[in-house]
Amino acid sequence: MTSHPGQELAAFAAALAFDDLPHAVVSRVEDLFLDWVGSTLAGKGARPVEAIDAFARRMSGPGDSVDSGDSGDSGDSGGRAEVLISRRSTTPYFAAMVNAAASHYAEQDDLHNSSVLHPATVVFPVALAIAQQEKLSGRALIAGAAAGYEVGIRVGEFLGRSHYRVFHTTGTAGTLAAAATAGHMLKLSAEQMLHAFGSAGTQAAGLWEFLRDAADSKQLHTAKAAANGLMAAYLAKDGFTGASRIFDGAQGMAAGMSTDADPARLTDRLGERWALAETSFKYHASCRHTHPAADALLAVMTEHALCADDIAQVTTHVHQGALDVLGPVVDPRTVHQAKFSMGTVLGLIALYRNAGLNEFAQQFSEARVRAFCEKVRMELDPEVDAAYPARWIGKVTVTTTDGRTLRARVDEPKGDPGNTLAREELRAKALRLAAFGEGASEAEMQRLFARLAAMAQTEQVGLLLG
Amino acid sequence: MTSHPGQELAAFAAALAFDDLPHAVVSRVEDLFLDWVGSTLAGKGARPVEAIDAFARRMSGPGDSVDSGDSGDSGDSGGRAEVLISRRSTTPYFAAMVNAAASHYAEQDDLHNSSVLHPATVVFPVALAIAQQEKLSGRALIAGAAAGYEVGIRVGEFLGRSHYRVFHTTGTAGTLAAAATAGHMLKLSAEQMLHAFGSAGTQAAGLWEFLRDAADSKQLHTAKAAANGLMAAYLAKDGFTGASRIFDGAQGMAAGMSTDADPARLTDRLGERWALAETSFKYHASCRHTHPAADALLAVMTEHALCADDIAQVTTHVHQGALDVLGPVVDPRTVHQAKFSMGTVLGLIALYRNAGLNEFAQQFSEARVRAFCEKVRMELDPEVDAAYPARWIGKVTVTTTDGRTLRARVDEPKGDPGNTLAREELRAKALRLAAFGEGASEAEMQRLFARLAAMAQTEQVGLLLG
Repeated sequence: MTSHPGQELAAFAAALAFDDLPHAVVSRVEDLFLDWVGSTLAGKGARPVEAIDAFARRMSGPGDSVDSGDSGDSGDSGGRAEVLISRRSTTPYFAAMVNAAASHYAEQDDLHNSSVLHPATVVFPVALAIAQQEKLSGRALIAGAAAGYEVGIRVGEFLGRSHYRVFHTTGTAGTLAAAATAGHMLKLSAEQMLHAFGSAGTQAAGLWEFLRDAADSKQLHTAKAAANGLMAAYLAKDGFTGASRIFDGAQGMAAGMSTDADPARLTDRLGERWALAETSFKYHASCRHTHPAADALLAVMTEHALCADDIAQVTTHVHQGALDVLGPVVDPRTVHQAKFSMGTVLGLIALYRNAGLNEFAQQFSEARVRAFCEKVRMELDPEVDAAYPARWIGKVTVTTTDGRTLRARVDEPKGDPGNTLAREELRAKALRLAAFGEGASEAEMQRLFARLAAMAQTEQVGLLLG
Repeated sequence: MTSHPGQELAAFAAALAFDDLPHAVVSRVEDLFLDWVGSTLAGKGARPVEAIDAFARRMSGPGDSVDSGDSGDSGDSGGRAEVLISRRSTTPYFAAMVNAAASHYAEQDDLHNSSVLHPATVVFPVALAIAQQEKLSGRALIAGAAAGYEVGIRVGEFLGRSHYRVFHTTGTAGTLAAAATAGHMLKLSAEQMLHAFGSAGTQAAGLWEFLRDAADSKQLHTAKAAANGLMAAYLAKDGFTGASRIFDGAQGMAAGMSTDADPARLTDRLGERWALAETSFKYHASCRHTHPAADALLAVMTEHALCADDIAQVTTHVHQGALDVLGPVVDPRTVHQAKFSMGTVLGLIALYRNAGLNEFAQQFSEARVRAFCEKVRMELDPEVDAAYPARWIGKVTVTTTDGRTLRARVDEPKGDPGNTLAREELRAKALRLAAFGEGASEAEMQRLFARLAAMAQTEQVGLLLG
């Protein structure tokens, strides 16, 4: 390992060129971007997201700073960065802030498992905002996003499990991801990028305590991670300096926020390992512990052309964690609770082939779904339990009304890297998410899909909607 | 101790009324405010401060969010909050951000010793910005500032010494101080104030690692603490929720950022103990370890009407910490280094009666100052060392050219609570600071002094300058 891993990581992020990216990586970034747009639209109308948007609108007034004959920048005509949930344009700081809040609301945004980082929700708000504001190409956006993923994931792995016990890694490591994306797109030198990391790491924040109250902080964490990382990069461009060893220094992030930080992870196979290919797309809208069983039930029903009424009983063979988390949920009263009910999830799968946002919102307490719940039981399975958490195996046994016993097994949940979503499936998901938040019409989404598909050839990134 | 100290602290901050403040406390707040204004003006022209100001100007453009016929707030005519170093007006978020950076540059802003918090630099940027934006009275500003001091100091004491080893308490606890001030002035209920604390605490950040590189992060920490605390309060006003136990919860600030947190400190004698009266004003512009000796030398020279040429030798009787920090500085080459040179400090005192910003900037390497350095030596004193750090005793022995041996002793450094600065001394300091940064003319400062003196009777706080 190099003696200064942060410096090596900064140099990598600064030097990464679009032409360095394998074609499969470019294609993957386009998929991640598409999925992020859908996630962002799903946040429209959500109370905490709208509160952050209202704050951004309130604080982005010009005062008297716009109409002076002062130095060039303040004569700039304001912001060109797009807030997706409102179709307004504003400055990149606020566009990134609001879009990052919106894309982390419905819990449909991507996740990198070993770093426990949600990368898209902090990377793409910055990538889009800067591309639009600075009139950059689609290639610049794609390369900038790749830099953000590669840096953020490694920083999350560096901070380790001890960090995640108290801190929200997406808020903390996410600030570095955002800084890397912004810094890359602002064309920072390797030295400036290291300063940007120093400024970003010293703003990294986000505590899990809010979960106890189901408070709104999750969207605040992503909003601030994106905005703070963007600020760190713009400041570095202007010569603002930061700690050179913000990661591994005696009074840096490892010292203050972790007990098992591993600096070698910061530079793990840079340029060879494309960590962005290891991310998972969220497919079902429910608690992850239900996903393996949901996939296995879908497999049985598809293979044997079953409908819900053909099913007499479903036994799911699960790990202990599923029993711990889902077992107590026997009578879900809210949408949120329903996402933790194995019976409800399988009922939605059986009846609608999808346990998605719309299904939860509209049908979770429907009589037929509740009736299906009665047919579902969970049972501890030693093989599944032993493989968890490295592998999330799905196994179900279905007894049909005509007396057959059918089984199915899925080795990797739908959406995980080894069972990923094809672009058509991502588009279908994005359409559902856009409909859920009423964020965009189908026609708008089809035009958006075309714009996204042409991103690598786009000379100047414009508005995504409208 | 209450079972929910955070809730009690929030209730105190929300309910604090101007009429609850003893007259001496009101007067003290006015002094703290005056001192803060001077500190802010001293930051004008400083590279890192100007970089933050440039970022704020760039990001406060309107986009298209101002000219719609949308809901009331976005039709508001932009910002009325004053950025003191530039005389521009902008929104309170950015005004607080820039003013907080500016006031923590010259190291002349106040300090509370036991909490190791610099309160003014995170409280007054918020108090001034919101008073101006929301058209509040001087009484509201004073009460809001008091709330910020009382909360911030207790949060700093709560977080403890272990926190301060890695984290910059002014950046972390300062976010809570700012949230309390903003929340008070936005008239949050006790419940909303607790949500504001939850949103603020989950953004608290600031690592000391930047010191190793002498990087610019110190101003970024105060800029973000003020802005983040202000944002937390505005969000809470809009119904945004936060963790109820952000201080003492299992995944809160104590859990993540301290090993000796003491929740009882959060509510220490609320309403009886006015911690804001315990703050120290910075008098000399040098490292604090030189202050006791500087005061003692001034005392000798004043008592015996000496001038620099009358002095043959000065022996300073110091604690070990002074020897450790100052001993190595034998040939200062920069202004910053000179602030750690006992000989230079005493030379400036002897020649100019003041070791202030202007003197350091203009005279630190002057021949007469360097010549005086040769006359200065430090010696470990057991009494002084034993009293440190609870007490910083100053003792000097001066040998005159005509053979007398004169001694002086100062028990509390000038500026500390027991040896505080009178209002006239604060005004003189503010004039020097305004001159240093060329932030305001003497005439403007005199008008400012009149405005500050009338603050408690002011119905609507307007611009401080211009």
